[in-house]
Amino acid sequence: MKKILIILLLVGIISSCSKKVVLVNDKKELYSAVQSALPGDKILLADGIWSDLKLRVNVSGKKNKPIIITAKNKGKVFIEGKTSINLGGNYIIIKDLFFKNGYARGSAVIRFKTHNDTVANYCSVINCVFDNFSNPDKYKPDHWIEFWGRHNELSNCYIRGKTNQGPTVRVFLKGNRNIWTYHQIKNNYFAERPRRGGPHGETIQVGSSGTSMTPAYVQISNNLFEHCNGEIEVISIKSNFNTVENNVFLLSEGSLVLRHGNYNTINKNIFIGDGSSNNYGGIRVINTGHWITNNYFYKLRGSNFRAPLAIMNGIPKSPLNRYNQVTDVVIAYNSWIYCQSPIQISVGANNDKKDVLPKNEIRSARPKRTIIANNLIYNQSNNNTIIEYDKVDGVRFINNYINRTDSSIYHNNGFISSSFNLIEIDSFLYKPQQCDKSVKLYVGYEFEKISTDLLGNNRNTKNCYGAILDNYEINFNLDKKRFGPDWNYLSKKVIPKSINLSSEDDFNKKLKLANNNDTIILTDTLYHMNSSVVIDKSLTFIASKEKNTVWLCNRADTVFTIKNGKLSLQNIHFKGNKQNILFKADLSGRYKLSIEQCSIDSFKNIIFAEKGSFADTILIVNSSFSDSDNGICLSAETDDKGNYNAEFVIIQNARFVNIADNVINYYRGGYDESTIGGNLIVNETEFVNCGNDLTHQTLIATNGIVNLLIANCFFKNNKVKNIAILWKEKNNYEKNNKIVNSGAFHSIMHLNQTLMY
Amino acid sequence: MKKILIILLLVGIISSCSKKVVLVNDKKELYSAVQSALPGDKILLADGIWSDLKLRVNVSGKKNKPIIITAKNKGKVFIEGKTSINLGGNYIIIKDLFFKNGYARGSAVIRFKTHNDTVANYCSVINCVFDNFSNPDKYKPDHWIEFWGRHNELSNCYIRGKTNQGPTVRVFLKGNRNIWTYHQIKNNYFAERPRRGGPHGETIQVGSSGTSMTPAYVQISNNLFEHCNGEIEVISIKSNFNTVENNVFLLSEGSLVLRHGNYNTINKNIFIGDGSSNNYGGIRVINTGHWITNNYFYKLRGSNFRAPLAIMNGIPKSPLNRYNQVTDVVIAYNSWIYCQSPIQISVGANNDKKDVLPKNEIRSARPKRTIIANNLIYNQSNNNTIIEYDKVDGVRFINNYINRTDSSIYHNNGFISSSFNLIEIDSFLYKPQQCDKSVKLYVGYEFEKISTDLLGNNRNTKNCYGAILDNYEINFNLDKKRFGPDWNYLSKKVIPKSINLSSEDDFNKKLKLANNNDTIILTDTLYHMNSSVVIDKSLTFIASKEKNTVWLCNRADTVFTIKNGKLSLQNIHFKGNKQNILFKADLSGRYKLSIEQCSIDSFKNIIFAEKGSFADTILIVNSSFSDSDNGICLSAETDDKGNYNAEFVIIQNARFVNIADNVINYYRGGYDESTIGGNLIVNETEFVNCGNDLTHQTLIATNGIVNLLIANCFFKNNKVKNIAILWKEKNNYEKNNKIVNSGAFHSIMHLNQTLMY
Repeated sequence: MKKILIILLLVGIISSCSKKVVLVNDKKELYSAVQSALPGDKILLADGIWSDLKLRVNVSGKKNKPIIITAKNKGKVFIEGKTSINLGGNYIIIKDLFFKNGYARGSAVIRFKTHNDTVANYCSVINCVFDNFSNPDKYKPDHWIEFWGRHNELSNCYIRGKTNQGPTVRVFLKGNRNIWTYHQIKNNYFAERPRRGGPHGETIQVGSSGTSMTPAYVQISNNLFEHCNGEIEVISIKSNFNTVENNVFLLSEGSLVLRHGNYNTINKNIFIGDGSSNNYGGIRVINTGHWITNNYFYKLRGSNFRAPLAIMNGIPKSPLNRYNQVTDVVIAYNSWIYCQSPIQISVGANNDKKDVLPKNEIRSARPKRTIIANNLIYNQSNNNTIIEYDKVDGVRFINNYINRTDSSIYHNNGFISSSFNLIEIDSFLYKPQQCDKSVKLYVGYEFEKISTDLLGNNRNTKNCYGAILDNYEINFNLDKKRFGPDWNYLSKKVIPKSINLSSEDDFNKKLKLANNNDTIILTDTLYHMNSSVVIDKSLTFIASKEKNTVWLCNRADTVFTIKNGKLSLQNIHFKGNKQNILFKADLSGRYKLSIEQCSIDSFKNIIFAEKGSFADTILIVNSSFSDSDNGICLSAETDDKGNYNAEFVIIQNARFVNIADNVINYYRGGYDESTIGGNLIVNETEFVNCGNDLTHQTLIATNGIVNLLIANCFFKNNKVKNIAILWKEKNNYEKNNKIVNSGAFHSIMHLNQTLMY
Repeated sequence: MKKILIILLLVGIISSCSKKVVLVNDKKELYSAVQSALPGDKILLADGIWSDLKLRVNVSGKKNKPIIITAKNKGKVFIEGKTSINLGGNYIIIKDLFFKNGYARGSAVIRFKTHNDTVANYCSVINCVFDNFSNPDKYKPDHWIEFWGRHNELSNCYIRGKTNQGPTVRVFLKGNRNIWTYHQIKNNYFAERPRRGGPHGETIQVGSSGTSMTPAYVQISNNLFEHCNGEIEVISIKSNFNTVENNVFLLSEGSLVLRHGNYNTINKNIFIGDGSSNNYGGIRVINTGHWITNNYFYKLRGSNFRAPLAIMNGIPKSPLNRYNQVTDVVIAYNSWIYCQSPIQISVGANNDKKDVLPKNEIRSARPKRTIIANNLIYNQSNNNTIIEYDKVDGVRFINNYINRTDSSIYHNNGFISSSFNLIEIDSFLYKPQQCDKSVKLYVGYEFEKISTDLLGNNRNTKNCYGAILDNYEINFNLDKKRFGPDWNYLSKKVIPKSINLSSEDDFNKKLKLANNNDTIILTDTLYHMNSSVVIDKSLTFIASKEKNTVWLCNRADTVFTIKNGKLSLQNIHFKGNKQNILFKADLSGRYKLSIEQCSIDSFKNIIFAEKGSFADTILIVNSSFSDSDNGICLSAETDDKGNYNAEFVIIQNARFVNIADNVINYYRGGYDESTIGGNLIVNETEFVNCGNDLTHQTLIATNGIVNLLIANCFFKNNKVKNIAILWKEKNNYEKNNKIVNSGAFHSIMHLNQTLMY
């Protein structure tokens, strides 16, 4: 009995005194320290590289005594290789770690659970960097941070470069432990998420259609989203009662989308475009009861799904995973400055596609009981302030203020037009010089809850239309440093250098010496390529403009295997052996390719994309492709899941002569609306004697490509039926082309596509 | 200026002093008093009948100073005729009124709004009676009480007898003013809602599929539901976050159904059956996140949709108005006492109907992440404790306690079997003699929230499986007087009398003398009917068994037009003129018909139901139908909306001879699952020489009738192909019949039905 008492006493002392700091030097020490950690403990990871971490935290801290797992020195602890960190307790903090050169082991890098029944609560990931921590296999889905449990947090992190499938941050709401979450995602810097040529590239996704009935209560606030271009949805909200507040969306090719779920609050966000790209989105609205207030939209010119404000049509009695009708949405006190067509209603209406889509894909349920009031629009000269894709009978416009008038604004008393000036607050942030006091503001049901403006000024004492009140002292500056970690995580810039390559040099050896962005100068006029060159960084190969530098490719099956980076070629004449491939985009490749002033002949394939590869841009200027079996093949994504092999293909002043089979074959399959959708421009280019072996009868095959322009080209003696088939529902055009003995352009309105859902 | 000040002062004094009581004697006085009512005012309606009220209340009381509109004397103020009371302010109370002999003007008798933008908040309807206030047109939809706004209340009312289409009480959630409602429906006595032979007969409906995403927060508590037989859903919950608590469901032919919406709390309700009817239901579960705790089920023996606990299969990615998958539901601490098959899982699974239903009607999504724990089952001898309509792989059974074992219980460790005794608390309320302390209770996620038992005893100090803790002093009594108003609203019982009718009496005059339930004795042996008799109360016509009393119907086109009540006939021989109808059920008729020991011949139609009419029961015993064109025609509901003309048709020891066309034609059309569904029993009956003129070739036509039994009958020389077509998917049987030269019974498995949704 006495012994037991003593043991109990000792245990008591140990647990109450514990608040130790432990330095760990390897994984074994780390795992052991974590396993025995007590509330208040701090575990410091020694500086250096920690590879293939597999950390499961099943201990708990307490409210004011969290267990902290952190770097000994911020920025000097690198988490690399296949990594998983699973948190299954309460009050655990992960901080100051740098994730790079690696990717998730399993479904997530950091996951707020260790088991379905053992989820994290009150845990945080703060002040970390996740840089290009992507699985090299594009189709391998994972998340960098997976939320489960309740009251967890991701804050002050820098998160950049996810290329593989799956949202960067994903909140799961499956099961009663994972609802009413009150998770916070705040103060983070979401830097570039590259285009990926397919769906499932969201930056944040909260819930899913299957859990879209859950009360989520996630707060996404004070984050910067810059170049988040992964897909059409930067943030995809698929649940209820979330708040997205005070975020900045900077040149991001996508929208904040209220995809599923209802009663979300979208307040005080800033969306910044550049006035020229159509791809930067704003807010897209589906479902019921959202409040969209105090948001600011600048220089956005997207339309349809990418409109600054897109209010969608729903599907009557929609299936759970499709589009519910918009009802009871309040859109008040927002500002649109220099946005081409700020408000677009009944987006997605597709009654005209009745013949090619099943009934439960037809979005004919128009928005209803929706209020657009007290907003501000400032524009220059367009006449399409409001675009209506269907009859607008369920949206009430009241007391909106606009600096001009145009024919698209006919809603009775819904708009007050008056010319006024703007005052610059920041390079993109403007407010009206003075609020027009004669404008009566609409006092809608519970509008008193909109108590402050975008900058936090009180609306209840003096109020005004638009996102920013006119009569306060304003100090605002978009300082990127206020987002992300408090330590310096950006790598030092290396100044690019030039490397001379003679015909006698060992090619691959020289290549190893080259750093990212270096230039390799071809000093001789004849090169023999004997082996394949693997490109995994950005390199320029350049020959003299004056010399005719020839690169003979007799022995290599594939000349360039492109894995990553940008490959630029200038002033080179590539000559194949009729059996080989000049450029093969590797299955894990994310790349750009630029061919300038080159002539290329005698290959089996000139450009050949493997399934899984993805070119952001392929640029062909002042070059000729000739005497080859195939020209440009970007058609490996044949499983029709919305993926495709290149985003932008631009061909300017080129010649295609004697290309027998595929001349240009650019393919996107599957009925998918989540990507920009493929872009091909062919300008001032000649096609002569091509397509003799073509079975599909189309010289420029572009199935499913959304944006197509063929202009000022000359087509002569090509044995094809179609030069191209233009998809008229989308943005497909040809103009000013000359055609001699070469088939013709044909058009279809709707394309029959594989349904993915 | 002075004048203005004085006026302002006076207004101030008037408004602050006001708290007056006004007696009003007519509608004009009432409307005027209401229009000028101030907080604290009380308006008394004088005793008597108030006809055709059209009251709009657009004034407001205050928190402790409501405006009260009430009866001078409880039970002496009758609201009759076409009535509408619309409330469009705050803090208004309607009380002590008796609604009878009338029906709703427009969509509702009492509606908590006057306009979409002017809804009621903090208003109440209390201590009132609504007795048979039904629109006579069965298809005219209305509600007796329509909830809009927030914080409104229906309490201590007696509500009985709605026969027309539409839920008795309906909560609307359309629009932001009408969500987060916190409405209360409490302490009411919902007495009989009769069977109506079609859908839309709920007693309470909260929301709709179209508003099923709304946070409703309605509380339905402490109500009695007795004989609420309107349809398969007594309460239809179609929204989120509602609470249904402490209610008693007594012999009600339907269930508490979680039809749409999620996260509802169903706690401490009592469901009482009689051990013989299959129609009394319990709780039917669809959707996500409900907590079903502390409920008590007694002597229920329904199956499928009417199971004591029915957990349904969903439709994968269900359309908004169909069936979502069951997920994350908690079913804990409930008791099932003498319930045949208490737990039925994957109810509605219909994979086998793939060929007759569209894909989005196939319920193949099995329940998942659902927990059934700590429940109590006490049964006698059956072997079907659990019925599984599909594979059960997403429901976890843990630590449930049962007094016996049977082969249907195979869930690993999910059940603990042990024989034990019950102790009676009330005639229907039992608890185990003593909780078996060796049974470990399952402590699920947030189970600590289930803090009390059915009777309010604390679970946290001493706990036990099942709805009622064993070790508290219990005083419980189901006193019906604790529900409904505090005044006496039941009409005095009148003792039925007998009236003699001689052949020389003025028939219609005599009829007028008869009260409900009186008996009319035919004293002579021959009667001539010259005019039609309208039946609108319960009457028995009886002749002597010994005499052959003949009722010659030569001149009336229709002999009996049945509007309401029960018509019983005994020992009479009805003889028609071959051109006329003997019994015509009027389009507004709700009736019972009993024919005993009668012989009927020479009519065009013997029983003919008009569209809209509805017989609860038609009973034909020891009688013969002969030499007529048509026998029993209950087939007027041909628009296939789920309606039908009779609930129970029972034919026992009868003869059908020389009925040329429709012999029995009993029809129910439309794919509807909300009704019992038509019941026909034909036993020990002869059919001879019938069906000569039949075009549909079926002697006993029963399209869409769910329950059919033809037994011990003799069929001879009927010129038909089919005696009957048995719908095998449902409860259709024949046995022990003898067939001579009369076609045959045929069967189909699935019926092709019109989709209604």
